[in-house]
Order: sequence, then structure tokens, then C-alpha cells
Amino acid sequence: MKKMSKAEAYEFLATGTRTGKLATVRADGRPHVAPIWFVLDGEDLIFNTWHESVKGKNLVRDGRIALTVDEEIAPYAFVLVEGTVEITDDPAESRKWATRIGARYMGADQAEAFGQRNSVPGELLVRIKVDKIIAQKELAAW
Amino acid sequence: MKKMSKAEAYEFLATGTRTGKLATVRADGRPHVAPIWFVLDGEDLIFNTWHESVKGKNLVRDGRIALTVDEEIAPYAFVLVEGTVEITDDPAESRKWATRIGARYMGADQAEAFGQRNSVPGELLVRIKVDKIIAQKELAAW
Repeated sequence: MKKMSKAEAYEFLATGTRTGKLATVRADGRPHVAPIWFVLDGEDLIFNTWHESVKGKNLVRDGRIALTVDEEIAPYAFVLVEGTVEITDDPAESRKWATRIGARYMGADQAEAFGQRNSVPGELLVRIKVDKIIAQKELAAW
Repeated sequence: MKKMSKAEAYEFLATGTRTGKLATVRADGRPHVAPIWFVLDGEDLIFNTWHESVKGKNLVRDGRIALTVDEEIAPYAFVLVEGTVEITDDPAESRKWATRIGARYMGADQAEAFGQRNSVPGELLVRIKVDKIIAQKELAAW
């Protein structure tokens, strides 16, 4: 097992169509986790979510998150992010980021459609401010 | 987007070397998430963890979990499991399951070595009893 540098960890997060697995906590204290599409803005991670989704409601109540992205083939690797979120519902900002997210996961030709669909009223724009990163590679090299 | 049947969802969980992203809650109420290697035993999910890992300590204190497995390429799909865990440290059981888990993720030739390494004293065997499954496919078919 080797530790990734911070630069490697961010490159890993940004590679291809890897999704983030976002953990939040429900009102009754149970954990929740869901895959999300996200992009980076400097050291922040940005995603959209519907205000009535489980993660959306959880984040409005408690902004603390953990998120992981991993490589599911040998020798395996993962990045784990811990942080807190800032939430806005500004339509222009939402649309800008939803379009970039659409480009990452659906391709440039569907980015505009995705951006439009995911910036309607009720969609939240969530910015993860990272407190800590744990990143390891070559996990199975033992 | 289409709903997977329960049988499809379990087949999805068991395919290849897909990892589970396991969400738990820390003592201070923050969420935690980490990739895990697991196998199925009927409708249960089974994995090993070190007793002093974050997830190990969290699960001993609060056995409620959420876990997701997803497909990171279009048209995208995911399975989300919610449940609670049963924890044991029986060495023979631990070794049996650690060997099966090693076979899944490292291949048959390394299964015994993995089984031995992950059933030493201090390794916990964790069985997820599933309360609820949410499983969707063709997410990007819109």
C-alpha cells in the first residue's frame, strides 16, 4: 500500500466518469450513502441534488459529509474526503455547474440539456469544503 | 431510469470485483464511508474489518449501515442497501469468509493467503442483514 500525494488524490477524483459515494446522516442517526456526479473547483467538490432527496434533506440539516471514490480493480486504490458543505440555490450558478457536471458524465453534446434539467427551481448546488483527504493506492500489493 | 428487481440487484452486487461503499456513523455524529471487499451469503453481505478501523469501531457502537455499489459508466446504475450488522470474531468463520473474499478480489491463487491474513485475532467478521434495497439502472437514459 502506498499513500497518494494530495495532487495525485485530486487527479484521481477528477479522472473519467468516476462517481463520488457521498455519506450523510439521517435525522434518526442512520447513515446514508449515494453515488453522485461531481466536478472539482480548485480544492472543492461540487454537485447538484434535488432539495427533497435524502442527501439534500440530510445536508440542509447537517452539513458534515464523507465521500469516497475508488478503483475497483487490482491493485485497488481509493480517495476518502471529509468535509462540510455550503448550499445555494442560485439558478445561474446551478446551471453553470450542472452543465460542467453533465459534460463530465454524459459528454459535451448532452451537457447543456443536463445543465438545464438540473438547475430548475428546487435543485440545490452543493459545494464540499474539504477538511481532510486520505488517499491510498496499490492496496493489494502485498 | 428503470428499477432493478431484487434478483437483479443481488446479481449486480456479486458481479466481478465491484466494491461496496460502506457508510457508518462516528461517535461525534459525522458520517464515514469506506470501500470494502465483500461476498454474499444468501441475502446477507459479509466482510472482514480490523477491530480498530474507523468502520469497525463505528459498527461496534452502532450497527446501522448503508452501502452502495454502482456502475460508473453510462447509462449508470446503482444498488443501495440499508441494514444492520452482526459482528463475530470466531477465527474459523472469519477465515472461511476471508478466503472467499480473497478469491473474489484477488483471485483463487491468493485466496488462502488473504484468508489467513484477514482472520488473525482482532479481525472482525461482519454480516449485514439487509432491511431494504433500492436498485436502479439506465439512470442516464433520458
